[in-house]
Amino acid sequence: MRLTRYTDYSLRVLIHLALHDDRLCQIGEISRTYDVSHNHLMKVANALAQDGFIQTVRGRSGGMRLARPADQISVGEVVRRTEEGFELAECSGCALSPACGLTGVLAKGVQAMMQVFDAYSIADLLTDRDAMRRLMSRQPVLGIGMS
Amino acid sequence: MRLTRYTDYSLRVLIHLALHDDRLCQIGEISRTYDVSHNHLMKVANALAQDGFIQTVRGRSGGMRLARPADQISVGEVVRRTEEGFELAECSGCALSPACGLTGVLAKGVQAMMQVFDAYSIADLLTDRDAMRRLMSRQPVLGIGMS
Repeated sequence: MRLTRYTDYSLRVLIHLALHDDRLCQIGEISRTYDVSHNHLMKVANALAQDGFIQTVRGRSGGMRLARPADQISVGEVVRRTEEGFELAECSGCALSPACGLTGVLAKGVQAMMQVFDAYSIADLLTDRDAMRRLMSRQPVLGIGMS
Repeated sequence: MRLTRYTDYSLRVLIHLALHDDRLCQIGEISRTYDVSHNHLMKVANALAQDGFIQTVRGRSGGMRLARPADQISVGEVVRRTEEGFELAECSGCALSPACGLTGVLAKGVQAMMQVFDAYSIADLLTDRDAMRRLMSRQPVLGIGMS
């Protein structure tokens, strides 16, 4: 049972921006922090901007920041936007689904999970900001001039 | 967000056997009901037998049946045995995970979902046995002599 990589990376980008909410951040530093491909993160950042989670500032000294305070972005909202679907099994293609109770039980399970995610904001995930920043600073810088 | 196909098929096999708990069932009929590969279902059935969910009887008039009454097999128990993992995001590979709150929130979400699944048995999924049997009987018979 997994969230898509796209949801995973979206949450990581938002966590990074929330940790550095005093300045603009670049894709390059997020890529280094998480050891995740620059191109993947570019796509994720574009989608997060389209969905209104982040703002981007173009240009040499540009970057990204959260579009709203981190305590106003719930984990549930992000997961709802980024996951492709919430049908846990392929019930829609099953001959028995019109009369089978499985679809409803799986949906109740997802609902219970999403209620938990709705109860937490991105800010709630930064339980130890200082420790998280220290862990970030330990990540190797892979190249000079990466932005 | 998806359960593995393996979990999906495991639940379907158990639902089929619960619907026909008065006789032994064959892989062939389950394959036709769900339009799912015979080979996939063979693997699923072998694993379900190993995990103690079903019993198999060898021979020409053999087949499978539930090893316990359907109301004594919870959906949660099946999902726990058949899913490969419950880490929703790749937190274990993330530099920030020692101090990040995401891992805990995701785990709480999974826990809430599993509590729902634990509250339902395979018997609970057969809310309308007659309708389910009718839907089954409408499935085309793809070949003669398939067992």
